[in-house]
Amino acid sequence: MEASYTIEAIEGGIGAVGGFYCGATNVGLREGSEQGDVAYIRSEIPCDVAAIFTQNRFAAAPIKHFRRYGKGFQTDFVLINAKNANAMTGEKGVEDIDAIFEALERYTDTLNPIMSSTGVIGYRLPVERIVSGLEPLDFFAKDADAAAKATMTTDSFKKELAYEVRLENGESFRIAAIAKGAGMINPQMATMLCFIVTDADVPSEAMRAMLQEGAEQSFNRISVDGDMSTNDTVMLLCNRESGNYHEAAFKEALHRMMFELAMMILRDGEGASKTVAFHVKGAADDQEARIAAEALSNSLLVKTALFGEDPNWGRIASTIGACGVACDEERLSIYYDDLVVYDKAHPELDAAREAQAHEIMKQSHFTITCDLGMGEGSYTAYGCDLSYDYVKINAEYRT
Amino acid sequence: MEASYTIEAIEGGIGAVGGFYCGATNVGLREGSEQGDVAYIRSEIPCDVAAIFTQNRFAAAPIKHFRRYGKGFQTDFVLINAKNANAMTGEKGVEDIDAIFEALERYTDTLNPIMSSTGVIGYRLPVERIVSGLEPLDFFAKDADAAAKATMTTDSFKKELAYEVRLENGESFRIAAIAKGAGMINPQMATMLCFIVTDADVPSEAMRAMLQEGAEQSFNRISVDGDMSTNDTVMLLCNRESGNYHEAAFKEALHRMMFELAMMILRDGEGASKTVAFHVKGAADDQEARIAAEALSNSLLVKTALFGEDPNWGRIASTIGACGVACDEERLSIYYDDLVVYDKAHPELDAAREAQAHEIMKQSHFTITCDLGMGEGSYTAYGCDLSYDYVKINAEYRT
Repeated sequence: MEASYTIEAIEGGIGAVGGFYCGATNVGLREGSEQGDVAYIRSEIPCDVAAIFTQNRFAAAPIKHFRRYGKGFQTDFVLINAKNANAMTGEKGVEDIDAIFEALERYTDTLNPIMSSTGVIGYRLPVERIVSGLEPLDFFAKDADAAAKATMTTDSFKKELAYEVRLENGESFRIAAIAKGAGMINPQMATMLCFIVTDADVPSEAMRAMLQEGAEQSFNRISVDGDMSTNDTVMLLCNRESGNYHEAAFKEALHRMMFELAMMILRDGEGASKTVAFHVKGAADDQEARIAAEALSNSLLVKTALFGEDPNWGRIASTIGACGVACDEERLSIYYDDLVVYDKAHPELDAAREAQAHEIMKQSHFTITCDLGMGEGSYTAYGCDLSYDYVKINAEYRT
Repeated sequence: MEASYTIEAIEGGIGAVGGFYCGATNVGLREGSEQGDVAYIRSEIPCDVAAIFTQNRFAAAPIKHFRRYGKGFQTDFVLINAKNANAMTGEKGVEDIDAIFEALERYTDTLNPIMSSTGVIGYRLPVERIVSGLEPLDFFAKDADAAAKATMTTDSFKKELAYEVRLENGESFRIAAIAKGAGMINPQMATMLCFIVTDADVPSEAMRAMLQEGAEQSFNRISVDGDMSTNDTVMLLCNRESGNYHEAAFKEALHRMMFELAMMILRDGEGASKTVAFHVKGAADDQEARIAAEALSNSLLVKTALFGEDPNWGRIASTIGACGVACDEERLSIYYDDLVVYDKAHPELDAAREAQAHEIMKQSHFTITCDLGMGEGSYTAYGCDLSYDYVKINAEYRT
């Protein structure tokens, strides 16, 4: 059966979605840089909002500020800053956000404005500097490029996408997003921010479940270094301006967008030179498959072997054996793409297969499949290699 | 009260302990190298043996071979090889050990000989090469230095210790060990081998509990990279030749030796430039303290900040917040040695304290203390920094 809709990538990012504006400015948070550091997303119609936040117990001030609004509030404004996470700043951190939004009223009306921050933990926001930087902002801009770039920290490229969904009946709606994230990416999300906007007429009560399901299949499956930040945020804003909706089409567009953004973040993993899908199947159940796949995507020895392009499958096997799931040396098989590198019939990697495996590892993306041979459970996690540059970036990130 | 015994470091390693012999040879497992690769430990009197092995489900062939002897067996011989882990080699891997020990009988009598291996996973042992290398071995050597060096893989220095324990009544006994380990060191042990021998008259039934208690306080508290190998072994051999024993003295000597060896392994963590004690106190209970301390010692972002000597305490806080233990931003305090870098009264690190913190971080060893302020639980884990060299060593380890 043919799909009764099409999903097409379009230009213009968030600015291409009906009723949304976005832009950025430089208030001087990045010392000595002319790159933007504060971005906004604004809607001319109040939006319903669904959000998923970090599970870190030290949730940053912007998250506390958001939660103060209570259930089911509407908003028309998001302000995002880089370089300072406004985390571990206590009640003062929330008061600083209030002060910024009070000052913002001088330049534009807002309804329940939301803040989002990323950067270093443990320092108060420079409120005066941010406020003074808001005055020259054009609140009717459609500059998704500037907004995406202003949210970058250790990101080496901006992440934004926009899709147009066309239905069989000729109606259409749009969905777009900006995201940032490059390090600290963990199966429970990580220092990543993602703002998705749509003019589709999504039922309010369906938003959160669709967002959560999308995160399970995307951001929650990627790992750069296994850490989880204080600021992680994935947010969906819906202003319904198009008046159009198709559940399957919207869900597919949303989930495809989230997966694409997650893969962009993974490719931009700090210092990463390649990405790998770790597909575990034949586990006792899906939960065990997930434990094994995440153990592989987080293992330093696996990650350094990927960087060295060394088909040392013993580190894969050892990680499976160490992660606590039911497994058996006699039943395990390991593949690099379609090449078997270990199973009972191929216990040693001969020179020909070793050369083939090495070629597969040279690719910028490939799949490592582990069939545990124990049951029907499966899961795929996505990871990257660990390079000299990861150490360099993270040893020097703050100073 | 003064201790009724003394524990003194002595020369001679395992060879200094009554009735034990040790030595090594080069059978050509390290291509192009003249370094020894096969070592032995032998006792002229049959020994009781206690051992702790890896919890990896893919336990290597030597561990399967050991377990075949069943409970309470005695032994007088341990053969150790480097460069090949004899793991993921199936039943053939165990048969290879049988073949080696069958051949060994040509040169020396043994009782229930034990094998131990470390190196690359997934390749059969070169049985013929090992057997032919055994012929020239002097089985009456006292060469602990050669034995310790032959077991090294990525170790940059050999690890061996010997103590003499003198009791108030003039009696004495000795205890000595060799160990190897430098990478893959995990709170559940890791690619580490440790052989401890003693001529003390230790009650057979007490050996295992004392060894386990020692491991909990030493090898299980160190982390280099959070991985757990297929071959980890800590073994205690007791030949009772001295006829002397004092429970508290023996236990103290054993545990001190295990802790010292663990610290040597940590200092030799692949590419590590410094070691850090992560002391968590004020946790809801000891188990939560342990979770938090191990999360800190395993965090890539903490480890790279240590390498960069950057007093970025936000990464410490974020890791505590992410690890799932009960905590509260208002109650947390963080210290580098005795310097408070974060608490409610010091939410931001001022320039003076930042400079002091940086000085503390320049040391080759220091302590990071996190007081969670939630209860009475405490635990200390030991970790090291993550350097360029870690990546280099592990990207290139095999090829």
